[in-house]
Amino acid sequence: MPGGCRKGKDNNVKPGTAVIGIDWGTSQLRAFRIDAHGQILESRESAQGIAAIRDGQFDQALRALIADWQTESRSISILLCGMIGSRQGWHEIPYSACPANARDLVQNWKRIDTGCGTGHIVGGVSCMTDEMPDIMRGEETLIVGAAAQSGTQLVIAPGTHSKWAVVHDGRIASFRTYMTGEVYDLLRKHSSLGWLMRNADDSAEDDDAFRLGVRKGLGDPDLLHVLFGARTRGIFENIAPAALAFYLSGILIGSEISGGLRHSGKNPVIVIAAQKLGRLYEIALNMAHVSDVALVDAREAAARGLWRLWKLHGEMM
Amino acid sequence: MPGGCRKGKDNNVKPGTAVIGIDWGTSQLRAFRIDAHGQILESRESAQGIAAIRDGQFDQALRALIADWQTESRSISILLCGMIGSRQGWHEIPYSACPANARDLVQNWKRIDTGCGTGHIVGGVSCMTDEMPDIMRGEETLIVGAAAQSGTQLVIAPGTHSKWAVVHDGRIASFRTYMTGEVYDLLRKHSSLGWLMRNADDSAEDDDAFRLGVRKGLGDPDLLHVLFGARTRGIFENIAPAALAFYLSGILIGSEISGGLRHSGKNPVIVIAAQKLGRLYEIALNMAHVSDVALVDAREAAARGLWRLWKLHGEMM
Repeated sequence: MPGGCRKGKDNNVKPGTAVIGIDWGTSQLRAFRIDAHGQILESRESAQGIAAIRDGQFDQALRALIADWQTESRSISILLCGMIGSRQGWHEIPYSACPANARDLVQNWKRIDTGCGTGHIVGGVSCMTDEMPDIMRGEETLIVGAAAQSGTQLVIAPGTHSKWAVVHDGRIASFRTYMTGEVYDLLRKHSSLGWLMRNADDSAEDDDAFRLGVRKGLGDPDLLHVLFGARTRGIFENIAPAALAFYLSGILIGSEISGGLRHSGKNPVIVIAAQKLGRLYEIALNMAHVSDVALVDAREAAARGLWRLWKLHGEMM
Repeated sequence: MPGGCRKGKDNNVKPGTAVIGIDWGTSQLRAFRIDAHGQILESRESAQGIAAIRDGQFDQALRALIADWQTESRSISILLCGMIGSRQGWHEIPYSACPANARDLVQNWKRIDTGCGTGHIVGGVSCMTDEMPDIMRGEETLIVGAAAQSGTQLVIAPGTHSKWAVVHDGRIASFRTYMTGEVYDLLRKHSSLGWLMRNADDSAEDDDAFRLGVRKGLGDPDLLHVLFGARTRGIFENIAPAALAFYLSGILIGSEISGGLRHSGKNPVIVIAAQKLGRLYEIALNMAHVSDVALVDAREAAARGLWRLWKLHGEMM
């Protein structure tokens, strides 16, 4: 193991760690100490997403977060997923083409040396839909962590770029990306709609306004027009400023769901998200007459996915 | 006439001016010296849109642009339209509800005293579609300037907030707004798509990339997904960075046209826009099998609309 790792003393050994899992996205860096049964023993998180890393200092950021999880006598393997494997990340790992399963991901991952022991970076998955390339990095690992090994499921991972994946017998058969979260952020922060919501309190959830937006987004495919309604409803005080943000969120999520269901069919649905966002998707999916919705916490899915890949790697050796 | 107006000398009289027309939008201030036949004798323009005016200094901005168009012996009336009549403008003028024609606009306008003579501000038009309020300010005057007095026409005024108005016998029967221009700007300036286009040369028009985007926007109602294709096509270098901006523009205009035509029917179409933008809409409308498209320059339509309102005012007195 190269030097520079602030190793814990041996009397400081972290017992039971089987693998260190790292979910390294654009804006967040999350680390999990995972035991042999896939349980999270400890987790840490920082805002050192790859967008915050200057001059390729990925190793330093990783050491700062988890160096003391390693010990003098034992170096635990590190498994990394997410945008860390992109062109802007540590090492670019090629995509596995759909259909792709956990075995494909393990065969495709790349070994790297970190200042804290040996690491492996999981690559993303790509697919072609309607002559357009589509890509994911990180969500493939969440899907491995959340989807069943048999049967067909629709797995939704909402976020900046929401993923809708059809998973058949644990294999990602196809998927589509929706820019829902990013468009919401743009409209909130920079648009003429955002101005009307500038004093809105996002913690005060407004389910009525959200449902009103979902109904619009589900029912009217004319998104560029429907969005303007958030402006006029704000101007005419038809919806209070504090509720407008939830109305806007409802429009966008409704639009995503309307399109997603048209392409993916009504299979049992798994939503992988943080709790609040997952609840909003469940409300909206129910409004679209999808009642079979299971929510999986995104952190849990990431740790579980990394552990499953690690375990499979052991079986394949 | 109140003081402060830098009047021209009488030997400096601007002959033939019947009315001074002002199109005062959010980002631009345009002034026209118009003769009794509706011809533009002179036009001026500044970046003093209402968003650039601090502390309500509208009068000062107007004076700075057109004071020398007035003379000691004669004060020409000033007719203003656009966001200048909004809550953020000089005086808020109520909307005329659809259906509304030129006569309604004249009856609804409000007189103000400016430092350069008497002014009248034209109010906007509102309508309800699918229980949502919709509004325009400024475009109603462009429509008066461009639409025929008889028959049914579809008038499109593309821009930050594109308007699609059905005009019947010179009366705005209904309209819908599309946030096309604003969403394009947001995506260009602030999004993960914009990053891929950061070195794009907008002056190098790329009709092929634009058409490819229009085809997507017209054919796939899943806008939040289709937009992501601009990202992946950029990443996979499937479309060159310089062409990506036109591809994105095509997607958004195609999406707008797909929705607009569904609601407005295929009447003869008038597009009121600056030349370049009008040409793109003509290409996209042709691709949507609308062949009867007339282009009207936006500046001409504004001046013509203000003059027609002024003339009607004279007839109504």
